[in-house]
Amino acid sequence: MAEKKGFFITFEGPEGAGKSSQLQLLAHTLAQRGYECVCTREPGGTPLAEILRAIVKEHQSDEMLHDETELLLMEAARSQHVREVIAPALAQGRIVLCDRFADSSTAYQGVARGIDVDTVRRLNDFAFGHCRPDLTLLLDLPVERGFERTRRRVETQGEVDRFEKEDLNFHHKVREGFLAIAAAEPKRVKVINADRDAERIAGEIWQIVDELLS
Amino acid sequence: MAEKKGFFITFEGPEGAGKSSQLQLLAHTLAQRGYECVCTREPGGTPLAEILRAIVKEHQSDEMLHDETELLLMEAARSQHVREVIAPALAQGRIVLCDRFADSSTAYQGVARGIDVDTVRRLNDFAFGHCRPDLTLLLDLPVERGFERTRRRVETQGEVDRFEKEDLNFHHKVREGFLAIAAAEPKRVKVINADRDAERIAGEIWQIVDELLS
Repeated sequence: MAEKKGFFITFEGPEGAGKSSQLQLLAHTLAQRGYECVCTREPGGTPLAEILRAIVKEHQSDEMLHDETELLLMEAARSQHVREVIAPALAQGRIVLCDRFADSSTAYQGVARGIDVDTVRRLNDFAFGHCRPDLTLLLDLPVERGFERTRRRVETQGEVDRFEKEDLNFHHKVREGFLAIAAAEPKRVKVINADRDAERIAGEIWQIVDELLS
Repeated sequence: MAEKKGFFITFEGPEGAGKSSQLQLLAHTLAQRGYECVCTREPGGTPLAEILRAIVKEHQSDEMLHDETELLLMEAARSQHVREVIAPALAQGRIVLCDRFADSSTAYQGVARGIDVDTVRRLNDFAFGHCRPDLTLLLDLPVERGFERTRRRVETQGEVDRFEKEDLNFHHKVREGFLAIAAAEPKRVKVINADRDAERIAGEIWQIVDELLS
């Protein structure tokens, strides 16, 4: 992979935490200050990775999609995404904003689904190579609040995916997983209280990013 | 995964070694002796795994399919195949005959493509869990002979896949990879000289299998 010169920011957190909106707000602010940004998401981000995303999220056939397969497909999508989109953009000195990344695999497939977390980390490392996030913004909120927001979105927009179908207990484990990562890597991962209005959250995010970039 | 009671035989070797034909001949002989067999193949063997097979083997879009992604997709297909087909059949006491399995990942994605072989092995272990082959029949032949046979098949049947497009040097490394596995695990892996007529090869295979099953 090409040498990294840009800055790589990932947004993590549960469904309903407002990751996508905050990513767009940050991209807007960065563009206003003259930074060149690339906005992307996981799983997905390339045509092939989007096919894998659809396989994982919308899987509905009689064939059970096993947890190990789910993880391997996420990592395959990530491997493609990093090599085709993220690493080249960073090599060109751009700021990459990514909605979910490897920490989601650790929290969802590792802690919540119960696959050994060290195995997930090794798979993450294999998939992303040297392309490690410089900053991770963990949008944290009580599980019940995320649930409520997601339900509202589902009611207005339709179908739920495989992860949204999981129960409260699963989502409690996901949150635990994310908070454990933040506790282990406080320099990279900043926990943002996402149970506030969007403007205040965006303000706090900008403060963190502005300080790191200047 | 369910407890294993049956017997798991894999066929490995280059394109053009006659793996599929020998698998069918062995299945026929086993059926005649009253054994219940399941014949399957990798990558593939389940509807989802066959989709992944098509992605890997027939990938032709402008998006480069990276080596790491190829390996992860192979392992995802394997994970699904083992859990949906192989492990349940073995738990029912059946003999499973599989055209390619984890050793192909070690030889092709590891030795030939240059991904660290220990990493490939760890990924294999993660994908197949406890479902390790009892016997592997390595159909070995000089690289040029396999090439020749494959070219003939391609001329009569049409399109070549991603692996058939690789050069002689790649296929020399694949053969090296397979022979190194056989040297390291002589008890599990039996090297069969595949540069002979099909009947003689089938005879040698039956001798090995008959001895192990009786």
